[in-house]
Formats: sequence, structure tokens, C-alpha cells
Amino acid sequence: MGGAELVLDPPSLETIAEFFRRRGREMAPANRIQAMFPAGSTVLPNAVGTAPGMTARVGTSDVFVMPGVPHEMKWVFEHEVRPRLSLPRRTIRTHIVHTFGRGESDVGQMIADLMTRGQSTTVGTTVCSGMVSVRLIIRSETAEQAQTEEQRLVAELRRRLGDLVVGEGEDTMASVAGRLLHRKGQTLATAESCTGGLLGSLITAVAGSSEYYLGGAVSYANAAKQTLLGVDSELLERHGAVSEPVAAAMAEGCRHRLAADWAIAITGIAGPGGDSEEKPVGLVYTALAGPAGTTVTRHLFPGNREHIRERAAMAALNELRLAMGG
Amino acid sequence: MGGAELVLDPPSLETIAEFFRRRGREMAPANRIQAMFPAGSTVLPNAVGTAPGMTARVGTSDVFVMPGVPHEMKWVFEHEVRPRLSLPRRTIRTHIVHTFGRGESDVGQMIADLMTRGQSTTVGTTVCSGMVSVRLIIRSETAEQAQTEEQRLVAELRRRLGDLVVGEGEDTMASVAGRLLHRKGQTLATAESCTGGLLGSLITAVAGSSEYYLGGAVSYANAAKQTLLGVDSELLERHGAVSEPVAAAMAEGCRHRLAADWAIAITGIAGPGGDSEEKPVGLVYTALAGPAGTTVTRHLFPGNREHIRERAAMAALNELRLAMGG
Repeated sequence: MGGAELVLDPPSLETIAEFFRRRGREMAPANRIQAMFPAGSTVLPNAVGTAPGMTARVGTSDVFVMPGVPHEMKWVFEHEVRPRLSLPRRTIRTHIVHTFGRGESDVGQMIADLMTRGQSTTVGTTVCSGMVSVRLIIRSETAEQAQTEEQRLVAELRRRLGDLVVGEGEDTMASVAGRLLHRKGQTLATAESCTGGLLGSLITAVAGSSEYYLGGAVSYANAAKQTLLGVDSELLERHGAVSEPVAAAMAEGCRHRLAADWAIAITGIAGPGGDSEEKPVGLVYTALAGPAGTTVTRHLFPGNREHIRERAAMAALNELRLAMGG
Repeated sequence: MGGAELVLDPPSLETIAEFFRRRGREMAPANRIQAMFPAGSTVLPNAVGTAPGMTARVGTSDVFVMPGVPHEMKWVFEHEVRPRLSLPRRTIRTHIVHTFGRGESDVGQMIADLMTRGQSTTVGTTVCSGMVSVRLIIRSETAEQAQTEEQRLVAELRRRLGDLVVGEGEDTMASVAGRLLHRKGQTLATAESCTGGLLGSLITAVAGSSEYYLGGAVSYANAAKQTLLGVDSELLERHGAVSEPVAAAMAEGCRHRLAADWAIAITGIAGPGGDSEEKPVGLVYTALAGPAGTTVTRHLFPGNREHIRERAAMAALNELRLAMGG
């Protein structure tokens, strides 16, 4: 398209103007350029933003241009680009199985023989937020063969990895825990200290979480632990805020006050300050109060403040998942 | 290093073994390979993970290999790679100014003449979490020249962008609001509905936030708004949870219960469900209760659930920042 003249596409300009009108804002003149395209190109509409995409034939290739904002690019790809692509003859299926509770090298060892390179199926691991995910890429001549191989491998992974397996594909720790709560018609509340709302944020990132999540307390200061959760001041003085008895009292107070079936509490030292000889940075107690009583787990997480908080929230949700038999 | 034999580096093996010992876990045999290096290379220690880096001379170049985990790579780069690099003769300085409250095209228009390409200084904008950031890249022959140009440009940006400017460099919306609270010796509490803890999570992502942040309630269900914040049930019935009076009552109840100087409340419809004709997805009320009274702001945010929640939390923090004169 080098050298092609830029021409205005009136429908695109109208879409952009409408985008601003609906939000009660005035369109900046600079946005007008988003409606200009090289002569000879085809506009790819973007229903979720102001910058449309486009496609043009260059030599023997079709070139597709998409907006850079990730969720806009995905939308334009799914709705405008993918339908224009001719599918390859070979079938490629991908499948992801998410695990939690063991490191990447441990998981790798449990499935080492499946990870041998140079096969038509590739098995690899990635880590994100403490979840070790096993990714399968299956290449086959036919769709049926690929599907059969996918089912066989997923079953084999689930057999080997047991209850380390959290879910598959788009599943998150919070969506899996939420599905278990929804199925049993049970409710959840949270009491957070060092995570400061991160746990609640992960839970409510799942659409429909209001079905089972009631809310809870961010009891960052000790006074908030007393006021919002009814934690005994004597308990706080005797054991300190980061302790097994306080974690249990937070979970139980939260479960009682919000009349929830389950309550999760987290209290710990995310650092960089606030630590002592007995209570180092990374020390976190998670408590789960449920119909059958309360369990407290002691953790020592590596990493920085962000990592410790993330691991704490994930570990606490995982304990709920396991307690609910997920 | 192609073809070089792998040899074991005993100090690296000891560091890795120690990493596992300190966490009370057994080292998997697979981790041993992280202590094997091509003969002739130099090991770059990694104090924050198990995989060290290395460097070797290949032809006329020094090749540096770093671990792939981002925070480990950063550590190894800062501590082991950067000190080994010879600095270029030309000075390059970068500086970022963060703004909030206007779109990227609006900000671009306000500084359009500074963004002309092909100069020794590059000025560009990026967007993340609703913050439009202006990035300066200044190239100069001497360090003094670069610094003078940087100061001139930052002053010019601040003059033009006024109170849209949140901060610079590593500043986040939450760290800037936190700095204002810390300076005045004031405290903050939060009451969150649709954001479900995200606001508290952003506030507590800042190290030292326990100096000014007391905590608050995640009042996702209406019952939690009553129990934890004392919001009147009649108010909820008459106006609905997503309304100006309920937002104000949440903020005031939260401020009162936690005896905080400031309280932020957020209630809205993050979608995809839960909307109605009068109350569409994206409708969010933010309330700020402070020493001089309570103000409520009505927002209509575009985008999906994740975007709406993020914008709501950022807008609420920005209202606190502006009220505190930041």
C-alpha cells in the first residue's frame, strides 16, 4: 500500500462520531484520521472501539491491519479477519490443562515422557500466577484424528496430575471455585488482610459471581479486624495479626457476620517491611471456615510483594476448591 | 556456544539446592540442569530464583543469557548484565508523565506540536488502565544537555496538562493518592460493590500503604451493604443498589465505621448481565466522603466487565487525588 492515497470512509467516520455521541463526548479532530484508508483497501468495521481495521491485496498476499488495543484486535480478528482466511488443510487443535500446587519442574517430571520433542503433538508448560499450565498442540491430517488424540492426552494428563488439575482452557481458579459453589447452591465471603481486596477482586472478575459471592471485609488495620469481623483484641495482642488463631477468627467472624456457607481469610506479611525474625516476609496464614469447621494453613511464599499477595489469594481459593471436592 | 560441552557449576547447584531447602521442599532432579553451563562461559548468579544466567564471548560479541521469569530477568540484568555493558557515547534519557481524565486523542491534541516526528526528542503516548502516559525519549550529545531538555519538556507538559497529570515514572494512581494521604497524616477506607476488592487491591499494592489505609468492606450483596456499612434497607429498596443515594450512604457508613478521614465507595453495573433500560452496563456511581462532606459522581464507562471495573477503581482514586489537591 506504499504510496496509495488516503481516502475518507464515510461509514467509518459515522461509527466513530456515534461512539463519542453515545458517551456524551465530543469527537476530537484527530479521530478523523481513523476513518481514512489507503485507496483500494477494504475497511474492517470495529464495533468495540474507534479505530477500524482494513485489508488490501499486496502482490500475492492479503494484508490485514487491525487496531492495537488488545480486546479490539481480538474482536476485529474474530469477526472480520478469521472469516476471510482460508483454512489450512492440516488440522491443529490446542488444549490447555491448568494445575496448581506444584512447581513447573515437578509437573514437568510427572509428564516428562509426554513432553519429548519432535512429535506431531507438542506438550509444554507455562506458569502464570502460580498456576502451571500444560499446553497441548495436536497436529493431525483429519479433525477426527486430532480430536481422538486430544481426548486421549487430556485423560492421561488428568490421570497423572490428579487433584492438581484446576481446570482447562478459559477456566481460572476463581471461575472453577465459583462453579462448585454455584452447583451446590452455597455462598462465599472473604476476609482479607495482606491481599487487601485482591481475593475479592479475583472472585468478582467472574461474570455471575453475585450468585454465590456475598462480599466481605478488607481488614487491613487491626481496628478493622475488630470492627468488621469481631476479632477479639486480646487475640490480636497475644498472637499478633499474622497468626493461626487470628486467621481462624477472621474466617469464622466473616462467615458468621455475612451468614455465608464458606469464608476464606488471609493474613500475612507481603513485605518489603513489617517482618521480624519469627515472622519473615512471605509468611501467610490462610483460613477456610465451612460447614464442617475451620482449617488454617501456614505458607511461606518466595518472591516480592506482588508475588506473595497473588500466591496467597490463589492458594486460599485452591483450598476452597479442594475442600469442595473440585 | 554451539557445540560447547555442558559442565556442572557447583556453586550454582548449591544455590539451587539451598533455594529449595529454605522452602522445605526437595529439589527435583530436573533442576540440576539449571546448574549446567557451556564450557568457557561465565555464570551470572540469580539471587531471586533457581535459574542463573550466563555470559560468553562469541566471535566479537558478548552474549548474555538471562532467566525467562520477568522479575528474575530484571534482577539478573540490573545486578549482573548492566555493570558489564560499556555505555554508549550518546546520552539517552527517558521520562514518563502519567495523566488521567481525558482520552489519548484529547491528550495528543493538547501536545500535538511536541509530538512531531523526526526530532532528536521523541514524544509519544500510551494507554494503560485508563491512564494516558506521555513518554519522552531525549537524545543528546552530553548528559547536561539531555537533562536540561528533559526538565524543559516536563515543565511544559505539566503546564499544558494541568491537573490531568497524576505523576511520573513509577508512580501509580494509588501511590500518588497514598503519598498525599501520608503527607497529611490522613487515613482512607473503601466500600466496594462492583469492583469487588479491586480498589483495595490497587491501594495495597503500594508498599507502606498500611500507614494510611485502614481497610473496608466488599459489599457485593445487599445484605453485606447493610451488615458491614449500615446502609438503610429502605434506601436500597427505593433507589436500588446502583444509585447516587446508596453510593453516598456506603461511603459515609464506611467512613464512620472505620473512623477514617476519607472513604471511597463504588457501586455499579459491570455486566455482562444485571442491566436494565435505566441502568445500563457501565453505569457506575463513585462517592467520596471526606472532612468537608460527600460528593457522588455518575459515570458511564465503555468496554467489557474488566475494563469497567478497572476504570471505576481508577476514577474513584482520581477523585480522591483531586479532592486532596494532588
